[in-house]
Amino acid sequence: MSLAIQHLVVIGTGLIGGSLALALKQAGVVKRVTGVGRNVQNLQDALRLGVIDDASHHIQEAVSHADMVCVAVPVSASAQVFRELALALPHHALITDAGSTKQSVIQDAHHSGLDMSRFVPAHPIAGTEYSGAAAAFPELFQHHRCILTPTEQTSEDAIMKVKKMWEVAGASVETMHAKEHDEIMASISHLPHLTAFAMMNALQNHDDFRFAAGGFRDFTRIASSSPDMWRDISLCNAAAISDKINALQTELASLREALQSQNGDVLLQKFTAAKLARDAWLAAGGDTI
Amino acid sequence: MSLAIQHLVVIGTGLIGGSLALALKQAGVVKRVTGVGRNVQNLQDALRLGVIDDASHHIQEAVSHADMVCVAVPVSASAQVFRELALALPHHALITDAGSTKQSVIQDAHHSGLDMSRFVPAHPIAGTEYSGAAAAFPELFQHHRCILTPTEQTSEDAIMKVKKMWEVAGASVETMHAKEHDEIMASISHLPHLTAFAMMNALQNHDDFRFAAGGFRDFTRIASSSPDMWRDISLCNAAAISDKINALQTELASLREALQSQNGDVLLQKFTAAKLARDAWLAAGGDTI
Repeated sequence: MSLAIQHLVVIGTGLIGGSLALALKQAGVVKRVTGVGRNVQNLQDALRLGVIDDASHHIQEAVSHADMVCVAVPVSASAQVFRELALALPHHALITDAGSTKQSVIQDAHHSGLDMSRFVPAHPIAGTEYSGAAAAFPELFQHHRCILTPTEQTSEDAIMKVKKMWEVAGASVETMHAKEHDEIMASISHLPHLTAFAMMNALQNHDDFRFAAGGFRDFTRIASSSPDMWRDISLCNAAAISDKINALQTELASLREALQSQNGDVLLQKFTAAKLARDAWLAAGGDTI
Repeated sequence: MSLAIQHLVVIGTGLIGGSLALALKQAGVVKRVTGVGRNVQNLQDALRLGVIDDASHHIQEAVSHADMVCVAVPVSASAQVFRELALALPHHALITDAGSTKQSVIQDAHHSGLDMSRFVPAHPIAGTEYSGAAAAFPELFQHHRCILTPTEQTSEDAIMKVKKMWEVAGASVETMHAKEHDEIMASISHLPHLTAFAMMNALQNHDDFRFAAGGFRDFTRIASSSPDMWRDISLCNAAAISDKINALQTELASLREALQSQNGDVLLQKFTAAKLARDAWLAAGGDTI
C-alpha cells in the first residue's frame, strides 16, 4: 500500500509534530502541511524552517480540508482539541495523536463526540531534551517504536493507513491495548521519572551533591525533565503509576529490613537478581529496536 | 613538602590500588612497589604491565620494609588485612586505604590493634566499570576527590604525608569526619544504587523492558554494578542507608497520595523543586571538581 496525504494538519507544532511533518515531507508522501498552535514565535519558526507550509491558530478552520490530522499537544490539552475537531473534521479525514498516555486520551476523544472509527491513538516513543519546532528533525522516529492502541470502534482501514504513516516516518510500529500500553509506560518510564524526582527531594542537603559523580548524574538525569509535562502524564496515568510505586516501596522496605538485620545473603540475592535482569536487557539490545 | 616513598605496598592490586601505584611511579615519587593479592593471574598481569615491581601473597612478609601501605581491598576484607598489618608493620610506616565506607573500616583497624596514629583512612571517589590490575591507569584520580577521614588518634604528620600522596596521584583532597563521609555517601551513592536495584526487582515483567529507551538505560545503569561489592558496602553503612531509604519512601508516599487524589498542584510543586535542585547542581559544575 502506498501512502498519499493531501493535507496534513499538525495540531501542536513542537518537536514531535514538527518531526512528523518533516519526515513525511522528506519521504514525499504529503502535499501540504498546516501547523496549528498558540505560540506565534514557534509557528513562525516552523514556517521559516520549512517544517510546515502554512500556519493557523484556529483548529476548525485549519482542518476543514484535511485528510490526516495529528494531535501532538500535551495530554492535558487533548480534551479541548478533540472537542473542536469533533465539530469541524471532514468525514474522510483520519486522526492520530502522539500522547504519552493512551487510556486518558481515548476517553477525552470519546467524550468529545469525535467519530471514534477514524481515530487511531498512537504513542511514538521518541524525544530529546529539546522542544519546539526549531528542534524538529526528520530522523527523530528512526530506530524508535510507535505504539498504536486502537479501540474496538477504530476501523481497520484507519489503522492500516495510520500505521503506514508512522512507518514511513521511520518508526517501528506495534499495536496493543491502551491499558497494556499505560501499564508498560508506568513501569519503564513513569516510575523511573517519579522516583528520580522523589530522590532529589529526599536528599535535603544539597551541599552533599558536590561529591556526586557519574552514577548520580545519570541516575538523576530525568529529574531535569519538564515538571508541567510530568504533572500531566502523572495525572493521566495515576492508577498504574500508583501500583508501580507500591511495588517499588515493597522492594525498598525489604532492602531496609535486610540492612537493619545485617542480612548479607538477602542483599546479595536481591542485587544479583537486579543485575541479571538489567544485563539481560542490555544483552538483548537494550534500547535499540 | 616533597614526597619520597621508598617502598610502597599495595594490598589489593586492582583498579584502585594499581592506578595509585602507576600514578606515583609516573610522578617519580616511589622507588619500589610491591603488590599483594590472592589472585595469581591478576598479580601476574600487574607485574607484566609494570604496575608493580614485585608480588607477594603474604602481607606480613611484604610489608616488613615498607614505609607506605595502601589497603585497597573490598571493605568486607579489611578487618583481616588490618590484623595482619598490626603484627608486622615497621614502626615508621604509614597506612592509608581506599574503602567506600569509613566508620566500619576505622572500627576494623581499631579492633585489629593497629597503631592508629599512623592510619589515615581515605576514600578516593573514582572508578570505572572495569576491575583488576589490567584496568589500572595513572590518570584515574585526576579531576576526582579523595576524602580523608582521620581519627582523633591520627598524627598530623601522617595526615600531611598521606594527603600529599593522594594529591601527587592526582586527586583533590578534602578532610572530614568519618560519620559525615558515610552520610554523604549514603545520599549521593548508596541510596541511588540500592534504588536502582530495587527498581529492577519491582518491575517483574521483563518483556516490558523492550520498550525502554535512553532514560531507563541511564537510570538503571548502576543496577549493573557488582552485587558482592554492594552487599559489602550496604552492610558497612547500613544505618545511614536505612535513613535515606526512609526519606525516599516518605517522598514516594506523598507522590502516590497526590496521584490518588489527582492533586496536580502538589505534583507540580514536587517536580519543580526536584528539577531546580538538579539543575542547580549541574549549573554549579555537576560532577566536575
